[in-house]
Amino acid sequence: MTRVEDMLRTNPAGLGTIDRDTLARCIHECDRCAQTCTACADACLSEERVEELALCIRLDLDCADVCDITARLLSRQTGHQPEIAFAQLQACLVAVSACARECERHAALHEHCRICAEACRACERACGELLASGLGS
Amino acid sequence: MTRVEDMLRTNPAGLGTIDRDTLARCIHECDRCAQTCTACADACLSEERVEELALCIRLDLDCADVCDITARLLSRQTGHQPEIAFAQLQACLVAVSACARECERHAALHEHCRICAEACRACERACGELLASGLGS
Amino acid sequence: MTRVEDMLRTNPAGLGTIDRDTLARCIHECDRCAQTCTACADACLSEERVEELALCIRLDLDCADVCDITARLLSRQTGHQPEIAFAQLQACLVAVSACARECERHAALHEHCRICAEACRACERACGELLASGLGS
Amino acid sequence: MTRVEDMLRTNPAGLGTIDRDTLARCIHECDRCAQTCTACADACLSEERVEELALCIRLDLDCADVCDITARLLSRQTGHQPEIAFAQLQACLVAVSACARECERHAALHEHCRICAEACRACERACGELLASGLGS
Repeated sequence: MTRVEDMLRTNPAGLGTIDRDTLARCIHECDRCAQTCTACADACLSEERVEELALCIRLDLDCADVCDITARLLSRQTGHQPEIAFAQLQACLVAVSACARECERHAALHEHCRICAEACRACERACGELLASGLGS
Repeated sequence: MTRVEDMLRTNPAGLGTIDRDTLARCIHECDRCAQTCTACADACLSEERVEELALCIRLDLDCADVCDITARLLSRQTGHQPEIAFAQLQACLVAVSACARECERHAALHEHCRICAEACRACERACGELLASGLGS
Repeated sequence: MTRVEDMLRTNPAGLGTIDRDTLARCIHECDRCAQTCTACADACLSEERVEELALCIRLDLDCADVCDITARLLSRQTGHQPEIAFAQLQACLVAVSACARECERHAALHEHCRICAEACRACERACGELLASGLGS
Repeated sequence: MTRVEDMLRTNPAGLGTIDRDTLARCIHECDRCAQTCTACADACLSEERVEELALCIRLDLDCADVCDITARLLSRQTGHQPEIAFAQLQACLVAVSACARECERHAALHEHCRICAEACRACERACGELLASGLGS
């Protein structure tokens, strides 16, 4: 069991009908995606032809911010407030999908973009699975 | 002209069809709301009957996180990516509205909750006006 | 009285020996500096010769992150924990000073860098005054 | 090799004299500690005797914010700016040490505090090792 799952298990609020594995995976992927996007924005900034990567950097920054905060919201169970997490998950899906598309355009040239696109797609799947599991109901 | 407007005016990306005043007001209200919610969570935590304020603290924390990140996304214009800001603004509306409702329940007893509810409602209006102005089109 | 001061005044924890005006000004300048640095990083990213602004963008991003979190820590009074705020304020001084120096190098060419350097210097003064007022004692 | 290491390895800025393993471990532990503290603050907030955990919640919140931002700064290599990361690491050491001490006081009663104290101590070691490796020189 991972530490994210341990913290969900020991929270006295409980999870209601939310599946713990699905939630833990989504928190984990959001956190990983945030770190990868922060690192990708910086790696792009150090490339020689940075002017071709301006949009990629911008989307990396947006995506890092959105994933960070989505992981935070999903880590809270007090009072069971699924509607905020639900809306934030949808914003997260939009951000990771846009960032993945842009990073995929540079994946052949820049390995950090290839890795970042994978992180965004993994996060996209985890957010989609959490939404499909009925978080907002 | 405020500093937020100055920074929007001097950004070489330009704003496209977005109204600068409406955007600047929304960034400003999101930042103010984030700070007020962070302070309200802490003030609630120092109240004698904190157990009655657990949900209020939780919503303050969510709302502070969401407003912080919404202001960041709205401050970026590179490449004009309205769909992420659009989705994030909708999550922000859900968060500030939920936080306002809960703070209003404690407004008569706790002045910090009364002020925080006002900050959330002002942010809600500013987000609604920005969405209505056609940011996402 | 500003809203930041209102929230400090209505916090039941009180401020101990910390001067409310000095603290409120520091929170306010940290929040303004964070927003200005986020906007300056984006404006730099949209400049034609972005490769000359890579370090400026990097320092803007660091400074925005550090100022954001410094404002959050300073907004909390529960249990009076000055040593964390004290250490964070010193990190904030290093970040705003480095960012101001770099933005000043581009101030003649880019108005957003000139405004951002001013925001960093104002934040530097406010952090210095709060440290000098004996926050950590 | 972890994804954090992959992103450090593929950054064209390089790491200078910084040891990649030590840096990657510190980024990883800061991110884990941030998530664990966010979850612990929420778990404390859902405990029946939350009034005894007010200081613990406050330190969890500070620690989550500081660790988040420390991981972000350490993920950036553009232009090699060790003095900001150095100052931020020292603030992080103060925050994780204070949070660990407080969580350890509740570790026997609350498993989430026990796990959180471990996360803080692991982060403390990783920050100490990175500082000892000469990041700031």
